[in-house]
Amino acid sequence: MKKNITYSDIAKYTNLSTATISRYFNSPESLSEETSLLIEKALKELNYKKNKVAKIFSNGKTEFIGIIAPKLELHFYTYLLNSILNTYTRYGYKFIVFTSNGDIDEEKEYIDELLAYQIEGLIMISSCIPSIQLKDYNIPIVGIEREAKYISSVDTNNYLGASLATNTLIENNCDVLIHINNPVADEVPSSDRIKAFENICRDKNIEHMIFYEIFNSDINDTTEKLFNIFKKIENKYHNKKIGVFLSNDTLANYFIKILVKNNKSIPDDYEIIGFDDSPAAIEAFIPLTSIRQDVKAITHNTLAILTERIKMNHKNRKTDLPLDKHIIIDPTIIKRDSTL
Amino acid sequence: MKKNITYSDIAKYTNLSTATISRYFNSPESLSEETSLLIEKALKELNYKKNKVAKIFSNGKTEFIGIIAPKLELHFYTYLLNSILNTYTRYGYKFIVFTSNGDIDEEKEYIDELLAYQIEGLIMISSCIPSIQLKDYNIPIVGIEREAKYISSVDTNNYLGASLATNTLIENNCDVLIHINNPVADEVPSSDRIKAFENICRDKNIEHMIFYEIFNSDINDTTEKLFNIFKKIENKYHNKKIGVFLSNDTLANYFIKILVKNNKSIPDDYEIIGFDDSPAAIEAFIPLTSIRQDVKAITHNTLAILTERIKMNHKNRKTDLPLDKHIIIDPTIIKRDSTL
Repeated sequence: MKKNITYSDIAKYTNLSTATISRYFNSPESLSEETSLLIEKALKELNYKKNKVAKIFSNGKTEFIGIIAPKLELHFYTYLLNSILNTYTRYGYKFIVFTSNGDIDEEKEYIDELLAYQIEGLIMISSCIPSIQLKDYNIPIVGIEREAKYISSVDTNNYLGASLATNTLIENNCDVLIHINNPVADEVPSSDRIKAFENICRDKNIEHMIFYEIFNSDINDTTEKLFNIFKKIENKYHNKKIGVFLSNDTLANYFIKILVKNNKSIPDDYEIIGFDDSPAAIEAFIPLTSIRQDVKAITHNTLAILTERIKMNHKNRKTDLPLDKHIIIDPTIIKRDSTL
Repeated sequence: MKKNITYSDIAKYTNLSTATISRYFNSPESLSEETSLLIEKALKELNYKKNKVAKIFSNGKTEFIGIIAPKLELHFYTYLLNSILNTYTRYGYKFIVFTSNGDIDEEKEYIDELLAYQIEGLIMISSCIPSIQLKDYNIPIVGIEREAKYISSVDTNNYLGASLATNTLIENNCDVLIHINNPVADEVPSSDRIKAFENICRDKNIEHMIFYEIFNSDINDTTEKLFNIFKKIENKYHNKKIGVFLSNDTLANYFIKILVKNNKSIPDDYEIIGFDDSPAAIEAFIPLTSIRQDVKAITHNTLAILTERIKMNHKNRKTDLPLDKHIIIDPTIIKRDSTL
C-alpha cells in the first residue's frame, strides 16, 4: 500500500488532468456529476479514502473536537474526560486533548493550535478564558462547570445537589451544619452549592458555618487545613451532632480519616456528605454518602449540542450559530455509611 | 479572515495555474525554487500557514501522536495518560486519544482511524494487539507496560520493583510473605513482579503464597475476593507476622480497610506494600508503602523515542526505521506507615 497518493496518481489513474483532480477537492460544484463519480470511484480503488486529512479539503469535516481540561491528576474531571473520550463509538468524533494549569494565555495558545487543525467543536472543562472571548472564535463550544454566559453549557444542577445534601443532614437531626469549600467565583456554576447550603440553613434556622480554604493537590497541606477546621468545630460545638457537607469526595475522605483517627463515630457524632460520587466515594474508609453527578448525561448532552451545531455549520457556513443552549442535569443523592 | 483558502485562491493571487499550486503540495520537487518561494510567500500573505491540515500536504508533518489507553477510570494508567498529555509545551505534539476495552478488533479500528489522520507516531498503553501486528503498520510505536517484542517499549523495571518490596518485607521480619495479583501473561512486563517475588522467597527460604484473582472495577467483588484471601491467610498462619505485596495501590487500600475492620494492627500484625505509588497510596487510610513508578521518566523516554524516529522519517521516507529501543526505568520504594 502506497502511503501518500498524490493528485498526479489520481490523474494518471482516471485519465483526467491534475487540474480537474484539484477542482474535485477545491470546488467540487464546478465538476459534472459524471466526472465526480469517476474520481470518487478511483479514490476508492486507490484506497484514497483512508487519507482523511485530504478528505477534509473536499468537505471541511475534520471530525475533530478539541478538549481543554484541567491538569488535575486523579479527580472528577479526569473521570469526565474519560467518559467523553469513550463516546467515539456513538458519535465518531476524534478528540485532541490539551490539559491546562488554568492560565488564560496557555488556554488561548491551545485553542489557536486546535483551530489550526480545523477542529469542528470545542469542549472547555472547567478552564478560565472568559466566555465572551470564547464566543469570538465562532465555532461550536460547550463549557462544563465553568462560567458560560456567552457559550453553550452543560452543568450539574449544583443548587439541587447541595439542597439534597443539606436537607439530608437536617433530616438526620444534625445540630450544626458545616460546609467546606474552596472560595468560588459567583459566575461559576458550583458556587450554587454554597448558596443552597446557606439559604436552606437560614430558612430552617439551623446553626451553620462555612469554611473557605484554598485546597491544592498537596495532601499534607490539605490534611492540615482540614484538621484545623476539625479543631475549630470541636472547640465551638463540643458534644453536638455535626453534619459536614464537603465540595468533593476526596476532601470528604480526608476528613473521614481525621475523624476516625480522633475517635469520632460516623454517623453518630458526625455525618459526612461529599460531592461528585467519584470512585473516591466508594473507596473511602467509611463508604461515603455523596451527590452523584450524572456523568453519562453530561457527556451525551455535550456531544449532542456539539453535533447539532456542527451539522448546521456544514449545511451553511454563512449562518450564525443558533442561540446558545444551557443544559442543567439533575444530580441524585447516593446514601452510604457516612450518614444515617 | 477567510476560513478556507483554496488552490484557486492561491492561483489567482500568484498568477500561477491551479495545477502548479497542486504540484506545490503534491510533488514539490517538480517545481523550480523560484516558483516554490513565490507560492510560499503567497501562503504566508494569505494567512494560509494557520491551516495546518493544508500544511501537512506539503511537509507530511501532522504533529499528531495517537494514544490508545485502557478504559479504566481512575487508575495509574490515567495518571500516566495525563502525564503524556502534559508534554505539549516541551515536545509540541498534539495527542489524539482513544480508550479501549482491551479488544483487539476495537484497537485495530482505532489505529486505522488514527492512521487516516496521518499520525506520526503511536503510544500503546497496556493494550492487546500483538506487537508483531503493530510492527506492520510501519510507523514509530512505543508500547508501555505491554508485550513489545517487535516494537519499541518503555517499562518500569518490574523485577527490581518487586525485589524492593519482597526484600523489605523479609528485612522487617515477616514470617510469611503473600503476593496478590491478577493472572499475568508471561510476555507482559509486569509478570516480572511475580517472578521476582517467587525467586527471592525461594532463594531465601521464606514461607510464601501467591493468590491470583481476576480483579475488575467492581468494588464489592474485589472486596469479597480480598476478604476470602484474608480468611485463608488467617486460617493457615494465625499469629504469624504477615507481609503482603499487592500488584497495585488500589488493591492494597482495600486490603488495608479489611485488616483495620478486622482489628489487625498495621504494621505489627501485617505489613503492606503496593505498586505504582499512585495518589491512592497517600490517600489510603494508613499511608501506604509503595513501589514508585517514575512516570516522568516513562513519559519523557516515550516521547524521546518517538521524536527521534519521527525526525528520521521526515529526513528519508524510504529508510526502514532503526532497531527498536527497549528502555527500562528503575522504580524506587517509598516507605510510609504500612511497613515498619
